[in-house]
Amino acid sequence: MKRSERLAVLSKVLSQNPNKVISLKYFAERFNAAKSSISEDLNIIKAAFDFAQEGEITTIPGAAGGVRYRVKRPSLQINKFLANLCNIIKDEKRIIPGGYIYMTDIIFSPKYSEIVGEIFAQLFVEKQPTCVLTVETKGIPLAIMTARALNVPLIVARRNSRVTEGPSVNISYVSGTDQKIQTMSLPKRALWENARVLIVDDFMRGGGTARGMSDLVAEFKAKVVGVAVLVSTAKPEKKLVKDYTSLLTLESVDLDKKTIDIYPQDRAFS
Amino acid sequence: MKRSERLAVLSKVLSQNPNKVISLKYFAERFNAAKSSISEDLNIIKAAFDFAQEGEITTIPGAAGGVRYRVKRPSLQINKFLANLCNIIKDEKRIIPGGYIYMTDIIFSPKYSEIVGEIFAQLFVEKQPTCVLTVETKGIPLAIMTARALNVPLIVARRNSRVTEGPSVNISYVSGTDQKIQTMSLPKRALWENARVLIVDDFMRGGGTARGMSDLVAEFKAKVVGVAVLVSTAKPEKKLVKDYTSLLTLESVDLDKKTIDIYPQDRAFS
Repeated sequence: MKRSERLAVLSKVLSQNPNKVISLKYFAERFNAAKSSISEDLNIIKAAFDFAQEGEITTIPGAAGGVRYRVKRPSLQINKFLANLCNIIKDEKRIIPGGYIYMTDIIFSPKYSEIVGEIFAQLFVEKQPTCVLTVETKGIPLAIMTARALNVPLIVARRNSRVTEGPSVNISYVSGTDQKIQTMSLPKRALWENARVLIVDDFMRGGGTARGMSDLVAEFKAKVVGVAVLVSTAKPEKKLVKDYTSLLTLESVDLDKKTIDIYPQDRAFS
Repeated sequence: MKRSERLAVLSKVLSQNPNKVISLKYFAERFNAAKSSISEDLNIIKAAFDFAQEGEITTIPGAAGGVRYRVKRPSLQINKFLANLCNIIKDEKRIIPGGYIYMTDIIFSPKYSEIVGEIFAQLFVEKQPTCVLTVETKGIPLAIMTARALNVPLIVARRNSRVTEGPSVNISYVSGTDQKIQTMSLPKRALWENARVLIVDDFMRGGGTARGMSDLVAEFKAKVVGVAVLVSTAKPEKKLVKDYTSLLTLESVDLDKKTIDIYPQDRAFS
């Protein structure tokens, strides 16, 4: 293969394996090229991605080293994406009797969930999560896209324990939406001691569900390194979890005027 | 940007947007380059992807034309992946009392679900699905990865209708696992007439759940263009859906010998 062709394939393989360290040896063998040539290729790709703001290429030296691609969107691009998302959500046709907002099509769309997952990954990669945790159902698309961008496994708590998944740890929690006591369950083999857990969900009102997930993590002697949600409500201001990151704030839904007040958090994404 | 740098970015943008037609005008403007230069770049990328078996680049002529990347793994590579998956599943520690197999970690892993989703997409892209449908919970990761690879929305039926999603269509179906009558629900606004639906799920025993999803699709005057599951059981041989594609066949689980008999379907992937 010529250098130009190698560049195309290298760029594809790297960007399809976010946060994964790939050895130069792998590429050298695959392309039947010297490691020094691969190094030069990688310098070109790094410069190109930097210039085009298409993410970060890092070379890690040493025996376990190699090259790694990470998603890294500029703040301006993220804020534009979130502002656009708010405009889509504000459509009055999304208001559902009871003051709910129909957002299922958005969070289940790979187009949006992939970007939201990548933003969560970018925000929390430095905390070095070793897994992503969510609870069924609506958080799953965002959570798997976050896990993909971080190159870690996804763990999904269920509302009830299943006979098909073996022994499980179960906890009770109070859901913020209807103040009902609910249960949450995770197979014993699904999570491990000292895991560094990033909690992901689509929506937070009181924070009861996120608190439930934190309690579940504690039962496994694992550690929560972050809580990321797409939308949180402005009220109640005090949530049941202390630290959480939300991309959008839902201020209010006015059923008479048919308006939804939602806006992005003003934040610099590093 | 130099050609070498353009190649890196073009290759990344194309491979991160599977099955999406991107106009040459977009690239020409983004790179401040002539369309003819972009065309030459694309020829290089096409040749490189062909040679490295990294997928298919197609140029579509005409006013609505452009360039499109599609996943296209060679049969040999897919069969190797599936054989490896069977070896992972065969681990006796996965056997759960009752004869179930613990596979949740596999289907929730972005590493595996992304590839399975891409295989489903490759198998059904010619049927031109306009959406992917699954039912909560375990089918969701495979389904969203399929939807991503096809560049179509994902639709998720729920076990119960939710007040937060507005008016819904509900059906009853008999689940193959426990022969219980269950319900399945989809918001009215989630699916549309004449949609071409690819049904995706992780597991099929009797086919009751897939049949339920087909019935739901019919209620919306939409059309099922395919049913894709990761694992189906050898028995019962006759499923409640006529046409389905399963990647792996689960022959039996022997609780005494602690063995799992599972194998890939022998198939040429085009």
